[in-house]
Amino acid sequence: MNKHHQAPAARLTVVTIGVSNLEVSRAFYERGLGFHVSSSSTGDVVFMQGGGVVLALYPRTLLADDAHLEDLHAKSPGFGGITLAWNVASEAEADAGIARAQEAGAKVLKPAQKVFWGGYSGYFADLDGYPWEVAFNPFWEFNAEGVVQLPE
Amino acid sequence: MNKHHQAPAARLTVVTIGVSNLEVSRAFYERGLGFHVSSSSTGDVVFMQGGGVVLALYPRTLLADDAHLEDLHAKSPGFGGITLAWNVASEAEADAGIARAQEAGAKVLKPAQKVFWGGYSGYFADLDGYPWEVAFNPFWEFNAEGVVQLPE
Repeated sequence: MNKHHQAPAARLTVVTIGVSNLEVSRAFYERGLGFHVSSSSTGDVVFMQGGGVVLALYPRTLLADDAHLEDLHAKSPGFGGITLAWNVASEAEADAGIARAQEAGAKVLKPAQKVFWGGYSGYFADLDGYPWEVAFNPFWEFNAEGVVQLPE
Repeated sequence: MNKHHQAPAARLTVVTIGVSNLEVSRAFYERGLGFHVSSSSTGDVVFMQGGGVVLALYPRTLLADDAHLEDLHAKSPGFGGITLAWNVASEAEADAGIARAQEAGAKVLKPAQKVFWGGYSGYFADLDGYPWEVAFNPFWEFNAEGVVQLPE
């Protein structure tokens, strides 16, 4: 903390989801949703290439300990304040994405539908209740790696 | 939901943080942490290029409404179960990252330190209490765009 090294601009490189059952959640994300699980995963942590970011699964209590946060130990924390999104290329893909998640055991919070900002989106909750949006945004473009390219 | 369009494998494209004060949080992330705010942002939502993922700020109550989730309306939900991470290139950068966040008004949860998995990491809580890890992982590599490249 006392080193006066110049901090670079921040980046978001990893999103870690605290899960109640690592094996069950791995199956949901890997087989259910189709994420690629890296061979660097272990019995304690699962690393997936989420696109332009790493998506990790880790036991919720250990994650709270790691962050020096008191874990509420509630199975369902209600709304934790963060949502994750999976942008797709068409309305049909948004419908299919919600259906795929439902087949994998997710709860549909909101079927995909026209939304006020001009797109088409729905939400599902994963096995631990974390909200994922599946959205088609006709105003957004992607690069070759599938990363959303925001206007400057 | 009844269309039998093939769902592609899921991706994580956007992470949205539900904030209590959009202007204050925008200043924290833009000027404090150095994220680039896209011109597509409005008075209601802030879009930032997080690296390989879009990082968005949106009022917490509206975000809960959007996801059809009951908002707990708690200012501090405790641990919401998700952590965000900013991977850096050295231990010195991890120290500098924590210091930068602290100068911007974040609360340091855990000063950067050697950790059991062989890296060096600390945590801070942003203005709404969301936990961010700043980590140097000597075993991870990045591509030219700064995206973590997991082993296959």
